[in-house]
Order: sequence, then structure tokens, then C-alpha cells
Amino acid sequence: MLENVRIVLVRPRGSGNIGSVARAMKNTGFRDLAIVGNGRTQSLGARAMAAHAREILQGAKRYSTLREAVADCGWVVGTTCRGGLYRSHSRPLRETAPEIISAALHPAHPVALLFGPEDHGLDNRDLSHCQSLMTIPSHPDYPSLNMAQAVMVCLHEIFLASLDQNPGTATLRAPAEDVERLFDRMRDALLKIGFLSSENPEHILLALRRILGRAGLEKKDVRILTSLFRQIQWFAEGGWKVAQDKERLGLKMR
Amino acid sequence: MLENVRIVLVRPRGSGNIGSVARAMKNTGFRDLAIVGNGRTQSLGARAMAAHAREILQGAKRYSTLREAVADCGWVVGTTCRGGLYRSHSRPLRETAPEIISAALHPAHPVALLFGPEDHGLDNRDLSHCQSLMTIPSHPDYPSLNMAQAVMVCLHEIFLASLDQNPGTATLRAPAEDVERLFDRMRDALLKIGFLSSENPEHILLALRRILGRAGLEKKDVRILTSLFRQIQWFAEGGWKVAQDKERLGLKMR
Repeated sequence: MLENVRIVLVRPRGSGNIGSVARAMKNTGFRDLAIVGNGRTQSLGARAMAAHAREILQGAKRYSTLREAVADCGWVVGTTCRGGLYRSHSRPLRETAPEIISAALHPAHPVALLFGPEDHGLDNRDLSHCQSLMTIPSHPDYPSLNMAQAVMVCLHEIFLASLDQNPGTATLRAPAEDVERLFDRMRDALLKIGFLSSENPEHILLALRRILGRAGLEKKDVRILTSLFRQIQWFAEGGWKVAQDKERLGLKMR
Repeated sequence: MLENVRIVLVRPRGSGNIGSVARAMKNTGFRDLAIVGNGRTQSLGARAMAAHAREILQGAKRYSTLREAVADCGWVVGTTCRGGLYRSHSRPLRETAPEIISAALHPAHPVALLFGPEDHGLDNRDLSHCQSLMTIPSHPDYPSLNMAQAVMVCLHEIFLASLDQNPGTATLRAPAEDVERLFDRMRDALLKIGFLSSENPEHILLALRRILGRAGLEKKDVRILTSLFRQIQWFAEGGWKVAQDKERLGLKMR
């Protein structure tokens, strides 16, 4: 099941770090490496740090956007070393690790684990793609881990959780791309009724993303919510006329 | 008590690795770094990898023999990534971490944690100085971790063990009554736009309750969702006229 966990490096900078990640992955039984951006996997530094894990570097998939990198994933988990605005729902690594194992039991939909660039970690736009956030515990004097070290710690915890694992029941989450389309529809509908401001629709939308991310949306949940926001949009685009007519005639809406 | 745990690097080779160890130490609240042999702590590579943990590099103590490096220590623990001869008494990291914390409570006698050189780890002569051995779990396909990664994993486990003695924090969920009022409002709004059927509104509402129930709503989530459904209701009850007028005048809704 560890093979069903995708390690996604978002705009990594140091190629040595990419090599270190590959080694950490092989050390803990992971295989699926994805890189968003131009990170170099075949430089001397990357290969040296990968040591006996070069086949993971060679097999790494490349994407130009994060959305593409996680499109087929059933659960997208961002990692962070600090709290703060937009990060308040982050849960501890050790608590999340067993859930990652459960989710990874469904071979059709990989779990994506996101790691941000070395300097500032995942930004708020990256975080908006995450259904959950996971905090790597660290000391307040210097909370920011090197990216490869952050990966090592996470994979270590997930690896240990996998050894604990008794085959259990897991829920089948909706693919990330379906969830993105739901949020596209939600944005359109909520702009139409004036709930989101056209100046900055993402701000409130992020709060809704966070709430629904924590819910762990399944396919049927996405269907229900999509139809709800489709109805809001329909109503806003003229459905109110039907409602008005029916009201005049003393009929119920449905 | 973490300051009473000495990280001893035995004949380290890469100076970048020494820098990574310093950063891992500061990330997890450790301070006491000892180096046996000629490892360079002030090279460009070491300083770059240490990032904001350079004072740990500067404060590192140097010893020509392992015996001197651990002379004042109350407990000497060697680390290894594999089993084998002379290593059969090794115990898992997670089991040993709380014992290291207990032992470190005695300020007079530091606990020493030994890490071997990059290529082959601690040799049998090094192991003879150890009172205990601790195994870092890893995958049999490639059990040997990079030295700095091995340090990171060990310090992470010991850091977490040290936090276990403190009470944790839990998120504060919204009172059930607030959530019920949210669902009342949701029912009204969704009936108005014809998303719920007036014959049986509870059926679909139950699905929405389940989704939001899983999210574990906090007070501020309830506020955001309440304002969303209030807006839907406002729009359905005549707000659409405002929208219509604005559209005619080419204005945005917000």
C-alpha cells in the first residue's frame, strides 16, 4: 500500500534534496515520486544523494502544475511545519499517518503527500489543493525542517504505521480532479448570488475547502454537493422566475 | 532535558551532512553536538545545510576518540539500521525513545546517541562503547539511511517522546445547538431554491449533515456556513431583483 502513496515535491530547488528524498523513499518502501516544476532529478548532486535509490529518481514523474500532479489522487495531504492563518486545521503527523495507510488501501486512487519548496514551504495556493493538512512537529525556536528531512520524518511515521496496520475498512474518497470541479462550480454559483466577492473569491472559498477537506469527500458526497451548487446557479441565472411564478400560483417549488 | 542528550557523530565524512545534523538538532530542540574525527564543521557545505542552526555547528565539541566523547555520559546508545552479529540486542527506536528521555532527566550525566560514518555505520569497536543499541526501522530493500536522515528520525522520535509528558491541545467544536440552527437555516434556504423537496427535505439534508458531521465543525465554520445559507435565502427571497438590476446596469454583485 505504500506504493499507492505519491510523494509530490512542489517546485523543489536543490537537486541534492531531490536525491535525498529518493533515498528516504526507498529506505521506507515508497516508490511513486512526482515533481512539480523544473527540479533536476539527473544532476550529479541528485544522483549522489540518492545513492542506491537512483531508479526512483529515474521513475519520477514530472508535472507543470500541482493540479495535474494530484488529478487522480483520492486524498491530497499537505505538509507544514508551522501553524498560522489557513493552517489552523492542520493535524499532527502521527495522528494522520494511520489514516494515510487506510486511504492507500484503495489502489484506484493514490494518496498524495505534498512537500513545499525549501525556502517557504507550500504557499496558500498550493494549500487550496489539499483536503487535509498535516503538521510535522518541531521546536518553536526553529520550526522549519529541510525539505528532505521533512520527507524522511513523514515517511518514517507512515512506514511505522503500515507495520501496525491490520487490514481494516477504508472509505473511497473522490478523485481530486472531481473535487476541483466541484469547487469551480461552487465559485461560479456563489459569485452569482453575491456570497463571494469578485475581487477576492478565493479567501472565503478557502474556508469552505478546508471544511469539506476535513470531511473527506466521497464520490457520492461530491455528487450531492455538485447538484446543490448547480441548483444555486440555476436559480441565480433565472430559476427565480420559475419560483416567482409558482409562488403566485400558490404552488410549492418541488 | 533534550539539552542533556549528546549527539555524537563518529568519523563523519560529508560536511554537508554535519550541517544537516545541526539543523535537525535545532529543529527538535537539541544542542549538544560532538564530533569524533576530522569532520569539518565550518566548511561552506556544512554552513549552508545548517541554515539557521550555525550556532550548533560553532558550539560542536571535537574529540579524537569515541571514548573521550562519551566519557561523562550516563548512558551510551548506538544507532543502527540493520540487524546482524553484535547487533542482536538492538531494540526499536520508538521503544527506546521514552527511556532516553527518562535517562536525560539526570543533568549530571548526559545521554550519548551515537551515529556511525556514512558508508558502513558504527563498527564493532564503536559498538563496544555502547550500553544499548537502538534500531532505526527501515525497508529491507534498502535499510541503510543517510546519516543526517538517521539523526533526523531519531531526534524526531525522542522529541515526540518528550512532548508526551505534556497535555495536548484539542480543537474546540461548535456546540450542537449552533449546528442545529445552521441546519434549520440550510433547510429553509434549500427549500426556497428548490434543492430540497418539501415532501421529504430530510433525506438529502441527512447526507449534508453526514458530510459536515465528519468535518467536525468549529464555531467559525458554523459562522461561515450560516452566512452562506443566509445569502442563499436572501437571494431567493428577492435578492435576485438586486442581481437583475445590477446585471442590467453592468455592475458586479459584490
